[in-house]
Amino acid sequence: MDTHLAQATLTNLDSSASADPIEQRVNALLAKMSVEEKVGQMRIVHAQLGVSLDEAGELVLSEHFKQQVKHGIAGIKNPGEHLPPEQAARINNLLQKYLVENSRHGIPGMFVTESYNGVDAAGTTDFSRPINLAASWNPDLVERVWDQVGREARSRGMHMCHSPEADLIRDPRFGRMSEAFGEDTHLVTEMVVAAVKGVQGNGQGLASTHIGAVTKHFAGYGQVEGGRNFASVQISERDLVDQILPPFKAAVQRAHTLGIMASHGDLNGIACHGNHHLLTEILREQWGFDGYTVSDANDIGRLFYFMAVAENEDEAALLGLRAGMNVDLYNEDCYVRLPQLAEKFPDIIPLIDQAAGNVLRAKFRLGLFDNPYVDEKAAPEINRSPASLALALESDLDSLILLKNENGVLPLSPEKTSTVALVGPLLKAQTLAQFQAAAGPSVTFRAEKGFSLTNGEINYPDLLTPEQCAEGLERAVQTASQADATVLFVGGDEFTSKEAFFDFAIGDRASIDLLGSQVELFHRLKALGKPVIVVLKHRRTLAINELAAEADAIIDAWDPGEQGDTAIAMTLFGQSVPSGKLPCTVPRTIGQLPFHYSQKKINYKKGYMFMENGPLYPFGFGLSYTRFHYENLQLSRDQIENGASLTASIKLTNTGSLAGKEVVQLYIQDPIGSVVRPLKELKAFRKIELQPGETKTVTFEITPEMLACTGADMVRKVENGDFVVQVGSSSEDVLEAGFRVV
Amino acid sequence: MDTHLAQATLTNLDSSASADPIEQRVNALLAKMSVEEKVGQMRIVHAQLGVSLDEAGELVLSEHFKQQVKHGIAGIKNPGEHLPPEQAARINNLLQKYLVENSRHGIPGMFVTESYNGVDAAGTTDFSRPINLAASWNPDLVERVWDQVGREARSRGMHMCHSPEADLIRDPRFGRMSEAFGEDTHLVTEMVVAAVKGVQGNGQGLASTHIGAVTKHFAGYGQVEGGRNFASVQISERDLVDQILPPFKAAVQRAHTLGIMASHGDLNGIACHGNHHLLTEILREQWGFDGYTVSDANDIGRLFYFMAVAENEDEAALLGLRAGMNVDLYNEDCYVRLPQLAEKFPDIIPLIDQAAGNVLRAKFRLGLFDNPYVDEKAAPEINRSPASLALALESDLDSLILLKNENGVLPLSPEKTSTVALVGPLLKAQTLAQFQAAAGPSVTFRAEKGFSLTNGEINYPDLLTPEQCAEGLERAVQTASQADATVLFVGGDEFTSKEAFFDFAIGDRASIDLLGSQVELFHRLKALGKPVIVVLKHRRTLAINELAAEADAIIDAWDPGEQGDTAIAMTLFGQSVPSGKLPCTVPRTIGQLPFHYSQKKINYKKGYMFMENGPLYPFGFGLSYTRFHYENLQLSRDQIENGASLTASIKLTNTGSLAGKEVVQLYIQDPIGSVVRPLKELKAFRKIELQPGETKTVTFEITPEMLACTGADMVRKVENGDFVVQVGSSSEDVLEAGFRVV
Repeated sequence: MDTHLAQATLTNLDSSASADPIEQRVNALLAKMSVEEKVGQMRIVHAQLGVSLDEAGELVLSEHFKQQVKHGIAGIKNPGEHLPPEQAARINNLLQKYLVENSRHGIPGMFVTESYNGVDAAGTTDFSRPINLAASWNPDLVERVWDQVGREARSRGMHMCHSPEADLIRDPRFGRMSEAFGEDTHLVTEMVVAAVKGVQGNGQGLASTHIGAVTKHFAGYGQVEGGRNFASVQISERDLVDQILPPFKAAVQRAHTLGIMASHGDLNGIACHGNHHLLTEILREQWGFDGYTVSDANDIGRLFYFMAVAENEDEAALLGLRAGMNVDLYNEDCYVRLPQLAEKFPDIIPLIDQAAGNVLRAKFRLGLFDNPYVDEKAAPEINRSPASLALALESDLDSLILLKNENGVLPLSPEKTSTVALVGPLLKAQTLAQFQAAAGPSVTFRAEKGFSLTNGEINYPDLLTPEQCAEGLERAVQTASQADATVLFVGGDEFTSKEAFFDFAIGDRASIDLLGSQVELFHRLKALGKPVIVVLKHRRTLAINELAAEADAIIDAWDPGEQGDTAIAMTLFGQSVPSGKLPCTVPRTIGQLPFHYSQKKINYKKGYMFMENGPLYPFGFGLSYTRFHYENLQLSRDQIENGASLTASIKLTNTGSLAGKEVVQLYIQDPIGSVVRPLKELKAFRKIELQPGETKTVTFEITPEMLACTGADMVRKVENGDFVVQVGSSSEDVLEAGFRVV
Repeated sequence: MDTHLAQATLTNLDSSASADPIEQRVNALLAKMSVEEKVGQMRIVHAQLGVSLDEAGELVLSEHFKQQVKHGIAGIKNPGEHLPPEQAARINNLLQKYLVENSRHGIPGMFVTESYNGVDAAGTTDFSRPINLAASWNPDLVERVWDQVGREARSRGMHMCHSPEADLIRDPRFGRMSEAFGEDTHLVTEMVVAAVKGVQGNGQGLASTHIGAVTKHFAGYGQVEGGRNFASVQISERDLVDQILPPFKAAVQRAHTLGIMASHGDLNGIACHGNHHLLTEILREQWGFDGYTVSDANDIGRLFYFMAVAENEDEAALLGLRAGMNVDLYNEDCYVRLPQLAEKFPDIIPLIDQAAGNVLRAKFRLGLFDNPYVDEKAAPEINRSPASLALALESDLDSLILLKNENGVLPLSPEKTSTVALVGPLLKAQTLAQFQAAAGPSVTFRAEKGFSLTNGEINYPDLLTPEQCAEGLERAVQTASQADATVLFVGGDEFTSKEAFFDFAIGDRASIDLLGSQVELFHRLKALGKPVIVVLKHRRTLAINELAAEADAIIDAWDPGEQGDTAIAMTLFGQSVPSGKLPCTVPRTIGQLPFHYSQKKINYKKGYMFMENGPLYPFGFGLSYTRFHYENLQLSRDQIENGASLTASIKLTNTGSLAGKEVVQLYIQDPIGSVVRPLKELKAFRKIELQPGETKTVTFEITPEMLACTGADMVRKVENGDFVVQVGSSSEDVLEAGFRVV
């Protein structure tokens, strides 16, 4: 197929008032479109409705699909997802040609994927999950990873991704914890900005080599009550502005996200998909967003049949549209009613124009009218290129968190540790090969998984009983007994923490204890009297109290990408020095919830009876094989006028014997405010590499925005008074200095 | 001492504009008072500062105390608390005489106690805690109990109590759970109204035989994050209006509470003691409250040194006063600054007049100017009268909840069960005697507590280890092995669930599992093969999964009063039929939080993995020894106009063989609203007594207020559409019928 198909030509550009060529083209197009065609631009349908290639490589569309797109369509979800890159590019070019040629005005479609750990399609690089990227505390790395994701997606003929997630996850019961960037507003903000910039080619690549981001879930999705998917959300307006919204605002204003997806849930009773305050007042009027808003799956229809804030589909469509919801994802019986509704409710006609215009604007920015097709031959070279795989490894290496290293047991020496057992339920099929390749022939590995956690049924899995695990547990112990040291892979997997889809899956948990026979296996291995190195793989924070007390070392690997076990092996054998830091607080029990480090300071007045209080590991914590010494925290001023900035600098020295990276973290405390203030808040960080003996002075600018809060009068501003600056290696290991704003 | 002391006479009544004699007297008095004297009426100090009787029975006051009250005082906390009633009345008369005679204007003081389970003083009736009263679902009983409490307090010369608590407690981690009336807005409202009416003598007794109530903690105290005392509170304005405030509003408007105490914490960042919206806009302007507001202990000063929303004591005093806080409890360095501050900030002068006037108004209503003294000789007859002790027993009997009764093991027959073992850590000193007296001589009891839960250190107790409990556990098992049946007393006590005072105690827990060796003891007893009847005594909800599965019977006794073990024995041996119902949902694990039955309906879409979901016992649940059959739920209308009422009636028949009481509960579901609605809400209930075979028709009026909610426009009103009425014996065992509002 010729990839240089005749492009959709636009004629009769009207003389729009706007000087912006894209705005002129949008307005000209809208002027020619029927209301049905405009509403077509307000719907995304799934390729599962009937998009495939036949044996001859020709496009086959179901009648149902054709019917759905007959007036045009905003986009198609996941076309070609199961095909390798070149075939995906082919089907997408053909599909695009169909859309363009079957549109009165030659309007192309946006092809949409998900991409939180690499493009969600066959033949793409499998990067780590966002929680790992957050653990790297390395926005430059994250931008490079997502740049590659954008290139891989575009090469397949995709144009948008329903990623990244800008939600704060502070409840590890929630099965989607690992899809987002952790508990902290500032860390999540920096990660989301890096991800959006990366996948959008920093704006420059949007029209050719990259794709548009849809930042989600707007807003408060991470705060579902009980960590239960689809549950209600209660957030005060103050915390919404100060804590929940900043990552979204930055995605809009700093990274120029092309799209925003609303949250499944409500916000203090108002369904997000029908929330005019969020979708219009805040997003458009306050922040100036000019991209498009899209619903989460079926969520406009669900305003009726799930949220129960509309009496029927008509009311649901009207509520969503009037609130500011531009695109209806998947419903076949909701926004399709808008042309008829417009006859009865003429007030919605300009809202339809705005919504369709927002989608058309995105399509122009994506270059789809000028070049709707991709070069099929280029796709194989872009996907899973050597550079991409190297980047995946770099990313996995950078995200590993060393939680414990008793007596410097790590790194392992191949000389002293010639036989290593690899055991435990989180051992993967590729682990042994990746370990052997990384460690080299001088180390002999013996692998014995022992047992699985569940029966592997994907939607409603059952835990395996201790009896079902007993024999495998014995095999694992037996294997370990023949080795010099054991690497124990425990935690959780895709069956124990996952998205609880609407009608056919669960994925949340009421406990964060290690499941099944894992603790027993750990105790049995410890009883052998040889070092036990724990590798924790998981998708939710786990309260690993027994491991923290007795393991010789713990590497927290979260859920790394395809190079993950290579990265772990390189780290265990000292070819890489760990530098990840916790992107979320690790508690001792789910009963401590809420336990994020930045709670209101009054929350720390009283601990619980009969237990050790405080976190098991604090936010921002992570060890290294080398040592870093912080000294001489200096502020440029001890008093500033309100609105001025100052700088904080600190001297950081690598006092150990290995080169390594350290994440220098800056926290602000506001001891007195007009409202009750958080204990402390991360406001800046920087990942620094230092050679042994090397010293660097790290300087941060402290801006007014970093000092501001939404006060008693609901205005966000800097309040005069004392502030405390804390700089250090974790939220609990800092030097501090004070200054005053007058 | 002559109790008919010369009363404080008021001269020079000015010609106030008010026709109300009390308002005239308040204004006349204010007109004569200095600012220091007015501020004196804005402080309550503790009798611990130095109020005692010497050996000759004469009043001794410390110089420090005299200094504190030299300009007059609003009130004194707990004078005479450790003295028996007659001596308490004597010291209070003497103290009152001192205050009156040392005041330029003869202003008496209010003597203040706490009274949530009887007057908190020596020689008074020990009634059960509020959670037990809530479990009775019997507001008439509660009013009679609190009527007696008011009489006992007034007879001692007290005038106010810092009770009841109108907080909703939905987090059993909170150590103060049992001080309030449970999780539900309507149940708490009815209980609070009954308590305030009772203790205030329904208004009529206020000036002579009863005392004034201070309803607390305004507002949201039950919602402290993590169930940690003093922690932050986040509640949307909508849930505040619909769920949290109604008990307070009813205390003001239906029961005319004389005082309101603010909450320790904040509300969405705004400290409650500095919250003008709460204390002035809602309480005074919307609800018309004309009593006085009082701080919780030191909480105005704590606006500075704990909440950190004021830079110093001056700012704290100004913030509290301007918000609407009338009386400063205990601080010696906060409101005392007001006279000086008034020179600099003249805007506070009218606020001081209002605050002092509110206190003086209360004193007039209490009759203190007309008769500040009590009849000392009357006190012994009123306190712990036979009628009062009978009332305590009635109350305890009415609150016992039968959670399980496998194979009708209860009531025990003295013939078949001639030897009964009483064992377990919640066995009290008086249990054996009360059981023996109640069951009579035909039953032989053997009592062996076995072990305690803690070392009994009150502020920071340690759990006893399994090793420390082992020997006692064996003794308990041994004792049980010689009996026909075992009554096992387990749960928690005053060392495992309590108020975490500001500086010197903890009391909250991160778990609701049974502590220590209790579950092991239960399993050992079950292994004996004889019936195990569990009596649960506790102050927080406990996840009694093992007991629920395997006990033969469970009586949930919460924390009854001094007649509690008599009530339990009478119930176990069939002299009384249990009729209590759960005032809060019992979950399976703390990880299910939030688990109150009235969550937003979308919270029930997804359960947690690897466990049974839903409550262990639902809200409103409780069995009987007889059986009740519900049938024929009828609504008077199937459609009403908005603003109209209708009635629901149901036929209830006692189909068992014993007379018994049943709590008929009415819930409303609003299937569609402009906002996400709760799954269901209790809106009415009635406790009915039926003889065997007797049938009664129970009729409820369904009023517009019962259908209203705060909608998307923040206006509380009835929204048109369908409603579902559910009537039955618990929140999960109901018949239902629908109607429509048009």
